[in-house]
Amino acid sequence: MQKVAVVMGSTSDWPTMQQVTAQLTSLAIPYEKRVISAHRMPDELADFGKQAVALGFGAIIAGAGGAAHLPGMLAANTLLPVIGVPIKTRTLNGVDSLLSIVQMPGGVPVGTMAIGDAGAVNAALFAAAILALNDSELADRLQAFRDAQTKRAKESEAALQ
Amino acid sequence: MQKVAVVMGSTSDWPTMQQVTAQLTSLAIPYEKRVISAHRMPDELADFGKQAVALGFGAIIAGAGGAAHLPGMLAANTLLPVIGVPIKTRTLNGVDSLLSIVQMPGGVPVGTMAIGDAGAVNAALFAAAILALNDSELADRLQAFRDAQTKRAKESEAALQ
Amino acid sequence: MQKVAVVMGSTSDWPTMQQVTAQLTSLAIPYEKRVISAHRMPDELADFGKQAVALGFGAIIAGAGGAAHLPGMLAANTLLPVIGVPIKTRTLNGVDSLLSIVQMPGGVPVGTMAIGDAGAVNAALFAAAILALNDSELADRLQAFRDAQTKRAKESEAALQ
Amino acid sequence: MQKVAVVMGSTSDWPTMQQVTAQLTSLAIPYEKRVISAHRMPDELADFGKQAVALGFGAIIAGAGGAAHLPGMLAANTLLPVIGVPIKTRTLNGVDSLLSIVQMPGGVPVGTMAIGDAGAVNAALFAAAILALNDSELADRLQAFRDAQTKRAKESEAALQ
Amino acid sequence: MQKVAVVMGSTSDWPTMQQVTAQLTSLAIPYEKRVISAHRMPDELADFGKQAVALGFGAIIAGAGGAAHLPGMLAANTLLPVIGVPIKTRTLNGVDSLLSIVQMPGGVPVGTMAIGDAGAVNAALFAAAILALNDSELADRLQAFRDAQTKRAKESEAALQ
Amino acid sequence: MQKVAVVMGSTSDWPTMQQVTAQLTSLAIPYEKRVISAHRMPDELADFGKQAVALGFGAIIAGAGGAAHLPGMLAANTLLPVIGVPIKTRTLNGVDSLLSIVQMPGGVPVGTMAIGDAGAVNAALFAAAILALNDSELADRLQAFRDAQTKRAKESEAALQ
Amino acid sequence: MQKVAVVMGSTSDWPTMQQVTAQLTSLAIPYEKRVISAHRMPDELADFGKQAVALGFGAIIAGAGGAAHLPGMLAANTLLPVIGVPIKTRTLNGVDSLLSIVQMPGGVPVGTMAIGDAGAVNAALFAAAILALNDSELADRLQAFRDAQTKRAKESEAALQ
Amino acid sequence: MQKVAVVMGSTSDWPTMQQVTAQLTSLAIPYEKRVISAHRMPDELADFGKQAVALGFGAIIAGAGGAAHLPGMLAANTLLPVIGVPIKTRTLNGVDSLLSIVQMPGGVPVGTMAIGDAGAVNAALFAAAILALNDSELADRLQAFRDAQTKRAKESEAALQ
Repeated sequence: MQKVAVVMGSTSDWPTMQQVTAQLTSLAIPYEKRVISAHRMPDELADFGKQAVALGFGAIIAGAGGAAHLPGMLAANTLLPVIGVPIKTRTLNGVDSLLSIVQMPGGVPVGTMAIGDAGAVNAALFAAAILALNDSELADRLQAFRDAQTKRAKESEAALQ
Repeated sequence: MQKVAVVMGSTSDWPTMQQVTAQLTSLAIPYEKRVISAHRMPDELADFGKQAVALGFGAIIAGAGGAAHLPGMLAANTLLPVIGVPIKTRTLNGVDSLLSIVQMPGGVPVGTMAIGDAGAVNAALFAAAILALNDSELADRLQAFRDAQTKRAKESEAALQ
Repeated sequence: MQKVAVVMGSTSDWPTMQQVTAQLTSLAIPYEKRVISAHRMPDELADFGKQAVALGFGAIIAGAGGAAHLPGMLAANTLLPVIGVPIKTRTLNGVDSLLSIVQMPGGVPVGTMAIGDAGAVNAALFAAAILALNDSELADRLQAFRDAQTKRAKESEAALQ
Repeated sequence: MQKVAVVMGSTSDWPTMQQVTAQLTSLAIPYEKRVISAHRMPDELADFGKQAVALGFGAIIAGAGGAAHLPGMLAANTLLPVIGVPIKTRTLNGVDSLLSIVQMPGGVPVGTMAIGDAGAVNAALFAAAILALNDSELADRLQAFRDAQTKRAKESEAALQ
Repeated sequence: MQKVAVVMGSTSDWPTMQQVTAQLTSLAIPYEKRVISAHRMPDELADFGKQAVALGFGAIIAGAGGAAHLPGMLAANTLLPVIGVPIKTRTLNGVDSLLSIVQMPGGVPVGTMAIGDAGAVNAALFAAAILALNDSELADRLQAFRDAQTKRAKESEAALQ
Repeated sequence: MQKVAVVMGSTSDWPTMQQVTAQLTSLAIPYEKRVISAHRMPDELADFGKQAVALGFGAIIAGAGGAAHLPGMLAANTLLPVIGVPIKTRTLNGVDSLLSIVQMPGGVPVGTMAIGDAGAVNAALFAAAILALNDSELADRLQAFRDAQTKRAKESEAALQ
Repeated sequence: MQKVAVVMGSTSDWPTMQQVTAQLTSLAIPYEKRVISAHRMPDELADFGKQAVALGFGAIIAGAGGAAHLPGMLAANTLLPVIGVPIKTRTLNGVDSLLSIVQMPGGVPVGTMAIGDAGAVNAALFAAAILALNDSELADRLQAFRDAQTKRAKESEAALQ
Repeated sequence: MQKVAVVMGSTSDWPTMQQVTAQLTSLAIPYEKRVISAHRMPDELADFGKQAVALGFGAIIAGAGGAAHLPGMLAANTLLPVIGVPIKTRTLNGVDSLLSIVQMPGGVPVGTMAIGDAGAVNAALFAAAILALNDSELADRLQAFRDAQTKRAKESEAALQ
């Protein structure tokens, strides 16, 4: 199976991004996690993007906050699907992160998720949906996740009553 | 090759969404376009989502505006990757569309693109990136698109000078 | 008397939505509360909407947060008046919930309340106003609520002085 | 059948509000239209609110823009359900109207619709949903409207193909 | 000297509005404080506005939050200058209060202050500036306040060094 | 009678600010209009503020757009009431102007009006309300304006019917 | 004298960015203009940043719109001061551009100007201010520009009267 | 070496602005810190701006919050490059500060940094970049800072793994 790259701009993004890796783990999807700051490690960013296919990755999940350039610059350096996770920020709550990631110009897409934790979980699930297109066992595990999730939602109603 | 479903909530979204189909065509990706209003055709929406895999689709691109429920509800009904295009609106310029699509709760992801035309073009390119993971000829065409795009960008500088 | 359906997308919405049920109780309006996630239980959502009239409901109050699709999709599946309560969110404070609920396209309305607790209380009062159109005793109780509320407001001034 | 009051703050709101009356007419719902400026005719506003039940109204639709106080102040003066239509404004596109109408404090609800034309159409449909609770013929007409709307949406797809 | 009316929509606004009265007290400006809810006490609001001149007031300071109708409706009922204080809200931080107060239509002005505490202090100072136009002793006290304020600002620099 | 100073940051603000002078003229309030750019003429700004009382002004109306510093800096240089008019801007529609004017720190108030034309008209009316406190003839003219305005609003309803 | 680099992400930014070059020309500051798309020409971007000092540049002015990564990524590749010009966008008016440029993380600064034309003019003036620190003749020309600008502002008042 | 002026509107801005001075210190750049309130000390502000060159300053860093007039008014009074730091505010999180600083009209630029702490650090680095243009030793220290920062970013990845 192709691996997923989980890239973050700073270790301060880890509390959010570890929800990506937890979700990938629960779906038995192999991944590697990297800290690559777009602004402090621009060469590493370009190198990583260019080598991502050769390194065996099938999708890149990139989380960044503020003027978040990591997802878009990775997308500029690879043909792999790049999934962006806007990290919540202290001043603007992640609106800056969201707009810096989602408003990409025509030609270089980033598939953007919700701000923060929900977006991190969903980034993993979205990568799973991509990889499951050619991995029927992963598709089964993803379906099982969905079924369990629906089951939990239904059970929560019983608990409420 | 798996087809791409291009779904819009209303024919009024077509001026934007035709940029999706034009881009898919230029990459020789087969697609079908559908008008399915989340609010006026909820049963058709659910049916389409549930049958999308069986119908041979590999990805769904869904465009909608305002309280845009189409991408998220399709995602709720399928395991396929759903790519959302927020349509620009007359009153809020598409901020409502963007937030209604991107802020999905944990569990059901939508890969969200930029508001309007740039997002429509990128939705097609993102679907191409997904399908190219297992289609080396498409990967070549996508690379050629990127190369041509870079070439045009460089030539535009010459024209400016 | 027709019952009111109090529907929420998740039990995490209960701290807000219990203000709906408390207000309904204080007005002696019968209700049923349900957890129906638009994204995790889409079939149950559609079924509930379609059966709501037959189940004896006269109005539906639906609370949801983020890309809040529950109120609008319920409205797509019923002719009953649907009242939406935007739940406050951690990142965007409920602006996403509000726009996802209020900006419905022409044809399928949702009567939207304020974000959070005030909106929850008012959803119950708005349902009461609807049901009171044909229930003079409820109208009397609603008038009594208003009178008591005005009395408390006036008394609060005395306390301030 | 109970009449619907269609109230606007200024004749400059008429281009939007006439979509309310057109929709009411198409559903054969009787209405009266009024211009009552919250700020220029506060006494008339209070009087109208207090007499609305006696005048035979079953719901009030109020449209206003900017610091829109008309819907909320009508709601303060009546127990009838008040439906608010935020009018699009030149400077803030109706965000000011929306927040001034929807963010009512607990105790006095206004059922708020989308900004502008879509909201105007939906205000009429929401009033229809309320009145149809006790008027099975209106319920039938409302169902017919929904059916026709769904039919048009489906036909628009054929036209697109 | 003419009194200042300090009106708030709810006692929950008092933590902010007491900064108005503290500032008025420090300038030896007589005032009366009132709780008048626009939505729960609309008749009292209209009466107070209409009688404010006869009651000896020279300016009205009104604080309210959310869909804040109190300042604008007081202005609709009096010729006195009305000064609005947008109260910070839990969900939208007072943006709703600000727009509901400042975006008044042409014809009925409200002089709007900053959201929250700074606005409350300034409302008192603005009322003082108005009353000082015809009260040279108050003008002297206001000048003394300004001088002291400037002195404190200068001294704070010394403390910083 | 004390004059009103009508100050704008640029002649490009004149289309908005001439509504101030037109309204002052209709109320027979003497005024002088000035172009004083806070950023291009800071010395003139400070001088004007310091001399405004001696020049016979009773209030200052200041309009500016973008990072609008004119009203606040005039307020910093005078004890007269300063009324701010946020000019609509091409990029942010005047939200920048509004926040730059209204969010003054505690100690130096600016009475802020709505963005654009409505705010300009209201600035004149607010200045009139201030000056009318000690000018019963102006108070009569202001009352006549209000009466005429209410009459026109009522007549507009007749025209609508 | 050190040259100024005027870099834009696309020729579509030229209508705005030509105001940079016009202003530089009027101050007799040498410049070179370049089209370097952050997303389509990432290698050229990195190369240009790294070579900018050696190429004789003393400052870089970079304009970009939407998810604007050009200024920040140039800053990541050079020690020269980078001045960012947020280009107005069709959907979000440049708010996306502004936040993508100004909200840089600690460590890599971009000196950000206003959205659109005003920002373009000011970027040239800010570069001039930087270069004038060590070029007394340029400082004189900059002072002359300021004097002329103040003179025009004063004359505009005469024209208004 | 030319000194840097670090100016703030109030000592309440010191927790943010001390990050400016700490960063300047670490780069061995001489500075002076001042408290100059634009609204409470307008004369001192003008004097400081006019004398800044003669006092030996090479750049001014100004931090202010809310309707932040300090950076822009300093820029109006000097030809030196002025770098603005928007201070986070309690109600609007610094959006007001940002717009009040960055949206300067054409003719008088302020190089604006991010809201809050990141902006404070970057203001110092931006001043360093300016002064380093003519100080090769400072350029070396700035390069060393960048190298160390990149090294720390890389090491953080190792720690994460």
